[in-house]
Amino acid sequence: MKISLAQLDYHIGNFLENTTNIVLEIKKAQQYNVDLVIFSELSVCGYPPLDLLERKEFVQRCEDEIEKIARICKNIGVIIGGPSLNPDPKGKMLFNTAYFLTGGKVQQKFYKSLLPTYDIFDEYRHFEPNTNFSLLEFKGKKMAVTICEDLWDDQPVENEFARRRLYKLSPMKELAALGPDFVINIAASPFSHTKTEIKKQIFIDKARTYNLPVIYVNQVGAQTQLIFEGGSMAINNRGEIVEHLSYFKPDERTIELENLYRNDKPPVFEQPTSMKMVHDALITGIRGYFNKMGFTKAVVGLSGGIDSAVTLVLAARALGNDNVYAMLMPSEYSSGHSITDSELLTKNLAVSYDQIKIHDIFDAYRSALKPLFKDLPEDIAEENIQSRIRGTLLMAFSNKFGHILLNTSNKSEAAVGYGTLYGDMSGGLSVLGDVYKTEVYDLARFINTKTEVIPENIITKPPSAELKHEQKDTDSLPEYDVLDEILNDYIEKNMPADEIAAAGFDSELVRKIIKMVNTNEYKRYQTPPILRISSKAFGTGRRIPLVAKY
Amino acid sequence: MKISLAQLDYHIGNFLENTTNIVLEIKKAQQYNVDLVIFSELSVCGYPPLDLLERKEFVQRCEDEIEKIARICKNIGVIIGGPSLNPDPKGKMLFNTAYFLTGGKVQQKFYKSLLPTYDIFDEYRHFEPNTNFSLLEFKGKKMAVTICEDLWDDQPVENEFARRRLYKLSPMKELAALGPDFVINIAASPFSHTKTEIKKQIFIDKARTYNLPVIYVNQVGAQTQLIFEGGSMAINNRGEIVEHLSYFKPDERTIELENLYRNDKPPVFEQPTSMKMVHDALITGIRGYFNKMGFTKAVVGLSGGIDSAVTLVLAARALGNDNVYAMLMPSEYSSGHSITDSELLTKNLAVSYDQIKIHDIFDAYRSALKPLFKDLPEDIAEENIQSRIRGTLLMAFSNKFGHILLNTSNKSEAAVGYGTLYGDMSGGLSVLGDVYKTEVYDLARFINTKTEVIPENIITKPPSAELKHEQKDTDSLPEYDVLDEILNDYIEKNMPADEIAAAGFDSELVRKIIKMVNTNEYKRYQTPPILRISSKAFGTGRRIPLVAKY
Repeated sequence: MKISLAQLDYHIGNFLENTTNIVLEIKKAQQYNVDLVIFSELSVCGYPPLDLLERKEFVQRCEDEIEKIARICKNIGVIIGGPSLNPDPKGKMLFNTAYFLTGGKVQQKFYKSLLPTYDIFDEYRHFEPNTNFSLLEFKGKKMAVTICEDLWDDQPVENEFARRRLYKLSPMKELAALGPDFVINIAASPFSHTKTEIKKQIFIDKARTYNLPVIYVNQVGAQTQLIFEGGSMAINNRGEIVEHLSYFKPDERTIELENLYRNDKPPVFEQPTSMKMVHDALITGIRGYFNKMGFTKAVVGLSGGIDSAVTLVLAARALGNDNVYAMLMPSEYSSGHSITDSELLTKNLAVSYDQIKIHDIFDAYRSALKPLFKDLPEDIAEENIQSRIRGTLLMAFSNKFGHILLNTSNKSEAAVGYGTLYGDMSGGLSVLGDVYKTEVYDLARFINTKTEVIPENIITKPPSAELKHEQKDTDSLPEYDVLDEILNDYIEKNMPADEIAAAGFDSELVRKIIKMVNTNEYKRYQTPPILRISSKAFGTGRRIPLVAKY
Repeated sequence: MKISLAQLDYHIGNFLENTTNIVLEIKKAQQYNVDLVIFSELSVCGYPPLDLLERKEFVQRCEDEIEKIARICKNIGVIIGGPSLNPDPKGKMLFNTAYFLTGGKVQQKFYKSLLPTYDIFDEYRHFEPNTNFSLLEFKGKKMAVTICEDLWDDQPVENEFARRRLYKLSPMKELAALGPDFVINIAASPFSHTKTEIKKQIFIDKARTYNLPVIYVNQVGAQTQLIFEGGSMAINNRGEIVEHLSYFKPDERTIELENLYRNDKPPVFEQPTSMKMVHDALITGIRGYFNKMGFTKAVVGLSGGIDSAVTLVLAARALGNDNVYAMLMPSEYSSGHSITDSELLTKNLAVSYDQIKIHDIFDAYRSALKPLFKDLPEDIAEENIQSRIRGTLLMAFSNKFGHILLNTSNKSEAAVGYGTLYGDMSGGLSVLGDVYKTEVYDLARFINTKTEVIPENIITKPPSAELKHEQKDTDSLPEYDVLDEILNDYIEKNMPADEIAAAGFDSELVRKIIKMVNTNEYKRYQTPPILRISSKAFGTGRRIPLVAKY
């Protein structure tokens, strides 16, 4: 049996494009006499469609497109994901469904049982969980058709106060009892740089436990914050990866099912480093946002610091240097090197830039506010005005010429509220908002592996917001290596303050940092969407009451 | 049997304050020989705690506080809401629990079965649904203890493509089979001005269907976007409301259970008008945000238009006129009446104000951008600069003096993207972001019922953003009565374009407006939290992919 794994990038709600790409894959497979083509979860509409699933015309369109695709499925079997109406009048309106198409029509539907409803996932919001199990029989083979989380009934967790087993049911246990020949898993499993190995292990464990091959087809590409790495796999019944599709780009692979039972050792897939994965993920995230929104050009405000430098490099790599524009906006507090370092960076990247001094605008604000502020000393109000002038200039450029402003804040800053709302926190997309400051440095060094793209001085000088004289980040924050570890313990691992301190940090410092994280929830509420690369990004996957005392 | 309904306002995570208030209620009840005191859902921590439920120390603290409260429960029974650990190692970590306390300790726990996971609700994110039913027996009475949604197994829906029956189970059916004497429902049911009657009918129907009295205890007060109206009730076995607690303020009531079986007709509760409810809800929302965040003072930018006028009135009523400050920021495009009308309003309200002309700052921006913009005609870029100058001035005032900026955008504008990010869309809280423009006018007239608080000219003049010469909202938008009906059909009722047009609107206009709603998702992603008064507010209850084509 010849099986094709079709790892595509979908545009949510863009049925014309999605169906065209799906049909092209099927036609190609037909030319090569493939028996079965497998697409990913909710592929007909793209994942995650969220509340578009509450619109009648959207769900109807999904079903229409599947009917349309089914009509070309002569002499071939196709497994494709889409929503379908729950025939029971009780329970949620929809099932998350794997459709089996052949003979020109929909032959069978398999419903998802385990509905992830945590972190960035909201599936129980729209779907009813399945509790009835059956196999797909096709061309003499029996297949267990599962959808993503269905195989994640037992998953490792990063923090102790979380569940390995979130569900009472194990779909694979139910399906195994029916005697399948192999397992299919259609998925929409987003990237997290700490979860690549865990993800592989899930499939390997299932293959070994049930002594069955597993074919896993993931989607690829970015959907606003979420980045899907692809990396679809075919695993043999001994739990060895026989085929591994590309990361971060559409790919397809045709396999002989028989090869998933052979005894010879498959070649080892060389896993890229974590930093290479993050680098490629962020580029995929930028590119996906721009392509799917119909944008081509980006603008970045260059401060001379490392965050804007790394953002500019990633933007240039994602969109092409001709499509990226940099703006330098020095004030009376800017150091000389913030200009020269930035200019050198734009030269290295062959990116255009302009310089606008903000002194006169800042003076105009100070004059206008003089009758109110009188002789009060300058403070955070004046610091923020400078940041907001820069935000306004960047947005004016964006409005005039159509460049999308990329936000340059990092995760450490976002965590402790070290940023100005409507100032440096502005932008259409936050590139580094899920990357801790120490990881931004790692990324800069990774970028500089072969040649010095980012001037060394940008990497080595002490970080400063340059909003007043002689300002350094360490005036109000601890060193970033300390800060980031505490933040990671608190945000990713959900550790209580006393446990973080017990791991070797000053207890008062830990409490101070946690308080900063908690009291800045209001700022993060208004930030742009953040490209997610960790297991717990700020944004839709982290829902903390804004008004709360804790 | 004497039963007290304790309708309190909780501060999420503020255990000291919540427990103090709970204990005070119990002690008062003990003085009056009350048998049973009933508090609302998740009262020990406040609802909704969201992802704080993923923190070990938070859940532990909830359990500790309940133990502490239990210790004073001698000679009295108490029903109180809190999370509790799921003893089964499979399934979600927690149950949403009604604790029964008496004899100085926790005697019994009742778990919630129906977990709302739609709109603003995310309960399946943290809780396992209950499937085992038993009654509470106390002082010779048998009670069916239910938690909020448990009685909502059959609920009316606003749009046709939504389910009346979201669950397979009916907890009340299960409990009725056990022969209870009456029903208790502890709730955290947020306000929506279209749902007040529906909510009452739910309880009335259950009382009639099962011929049992129903005692419903709701929480009151605001939790960021969500406003809880209170309005707890005791309903007799014929479905008549015997006791109805206050709307929008903490309240308590002690009833004789026997009165819920008597045959005499209870007095009719006079339901306030919908506009009075909205008015009081918004004041509750502002007050709750400020009190719980520890803020006292607000600043509002007054444009001379109706939105900022209504916002200022509501702020003054919520916080006191002394705590509210208005800023007038005319430009070269501002009309004379925008100043005089605003001044009259501040006089009527006895609110302080200042005026800052933005001309010079605007000129400074234009000069700075001249080398880039050259002789290009002025357009949306320059319009937005003016709006952002005002945002920056208001935030500078906020940063300098500690006043919180209230956002003045209405729902119609937010829907079609008629607003400037980082400009007039700034603020800590959006007061009118869930109020359509036509409803803002209704609110203004309601405010002016007795005396003219808002100058009549503000209500009657045609709305304009005044960002260029002779600008009117109707230059780019239809009349608001048409716009709002189309928006309501699309957003609240989820109607497809063709069905909206079929109801009597120009098909091209409908499509144009829907496109505006869809393409402005990115703006709404970055807006402040919006006080929710409808059944579908922008914000956490409406999750639409930002990058999508539909």
